[in-house]
Amino acid sequence: MKIARFATPGEDPRYGIVDERELIVLAGDPMYSGYETTGERVSLRSAKLLAPVIPRSKVVGVGLNYHDHADELGQTPPEAPLLFIKPNTTVIGFGDSIQLPPDVGQVDFEGELAIVIGSIAKRVKAEDFQDVVFGYTIANDVTARDVQNRDGQWTRAKGYDTFLPLGPYIENELDWTDATIETRVDGEVMQRESTLQMIHKIPQLIEYITDVFTLLPGDVILTGTPAGIGPFTAGQTVEVAISGIGSLINPAKNRV
Amino acid sequence: MKIARFATPGEDPRYGIVDERELIVLAGDPMYSGYETTGERVSLRSAKLLAPVIPRSKVVGVGLNYHDHADELGQTPPEAPLLFIKPNTTVIGFGDSIQLPPDVGQVDFEGELAIVIGSIAKRVKAEDFQDVVFGYTIANDVTARDVQNRDGQWTRAKGYDTFLPLGPYIENELDWTDATIETRVDGEVMQRESTLQMIHKIPQLIEYITDVFTLLPGDVILTGTPAGIGPFTAGQTVEVAISGIGSLINPAKNRV
Repeated sequence: MKIARFATPGEDPRYGIVDERELIVLAGDPMYSGYETTGERVSLRSAKLLAPVIPRSKVVGVGLNYHDHADELGQTPPEAPLLFIKPNTTVIGFGDSIQLPPDVGQVDFEGELAIVIGSIAKRVKAEDFQDVVFGYTIANDVTARDVQNRDGQWTRAKGYDTFLPLGPYIENELDWTDATIETRVDGEVMQRESTLQMIHKIPQLIEYITDVFTLLPGDVILTGTPAGIGPFTAGQTVEVAISGIGSLINPAKNRV
Repeated sequence: MKIARFATPGEDPRYGIVDERELIVLAGDPMYSGYETTGERVSLRSAKLLAPVIPRSKVVGVGLNYHDHADELGQTPPEAPLLFIKPNTTVIGFGDSIQLPPDVGQVDFEGELAIVIGSIAKRVKAEDFQDVVFGYTIANDVTARDVQNRDGQWTRAKGYDTFLPLGPYIENELDWTDATIETRVDGEVMQRESTLQMIHKIPQLIEYITDVFTLLPGDVILTGTPAGIGPFTAGQTVEVAISGIGSLINPAKNRV
């Protein structure tokens, strides 16, 4: 089932279940109040899709978590997941513009499968990972590559406002073991890989991460990007598609 | 004026102004609703002090921001502030235990002056920094040193639950240009330095950081630690005192 968060003119954000070209409107946030419907339907065309979740605490990223991506960087993948944080102020939704700050140099796309956490998650065992997963969505872990190399620490390079497109939907029944991630820039395929190539798998990531941090409902884990990362520039459009979820499309423009 | 957030038995957290040994109870969160009082007074002795703020989005830290601390590490201070993030799940208050996870090796204290942001802050000019500062408090930027060295990225080492004691009060009239930070472990002075030694000063930090991230009300900036950092262990008590604010005291214990 695919869940959207959306706005219509004059209304507060609402949630809906995607049913072909319509949204079945939900009475509340399904993460907290389940799937009671209002009886209303809204056409997808008339709704503005929003980021399906705003993390209450954090987005935890995992570096070098695909075999082919570590290879392309000439790096040995770390034995344990290498963690970083993107703040919730990076999050934008489907169709929103990625804003490129002045003077940062090269900015890269990184298409990724994202996990949306559904309950307070603290020291969760790998075998219990499903207890804390609300669903899966698509992410573009936008990274200012020159800044990353200059700082050494990744925080600033990955933390600019708008550097985390998320969406368009949360799919709560995804087969995450073999989903295909495909990233396109102006329609040209730049990344195409299955999540089969993931080094540290989702159950292990959740065990490892929740041993460090307590995750709160709405927090997000980015599971790493496959090979093929590269730059995009203002005026281009970046699309990340994951089989079974959909397609996340964002234009890039210079920050004004 | 010193502002506390506190709990009394059977009540939700409230805010108060510290008046000698009492708290003048405020009607709401002064960050949003000003300083209207309820007329009630609570003795400090009967109140449990809480972290004076829970960041809504993030805590931004600045590495190597004291001349003497960069010297002790044998490192050249970076030309620009070096940023990292601690998630809001690290925050604890006065008297709460710092919980040392198993198998992380050495854990260090880092006494710091913390800035509490009071309004949405985006691309704030240095000369306007006071417009977005709610006040100042004390922080202990607890860091798992061996983990930091192993990971390279600082996120995990600084991100464990309980690794950010904050408090006890927010002082909204501090002379931050020359406040003395003193850190003691079981009463022994380990750090003692004035904020005069800060490399990137508070107005410049706010300009730099708000060019990267939008800060939200309640977000916190840690301004860096002076020389003298070092380890503490379970059973010890760490105190960070800053002239004009007070003293933040936290015992350490092994995580259970």
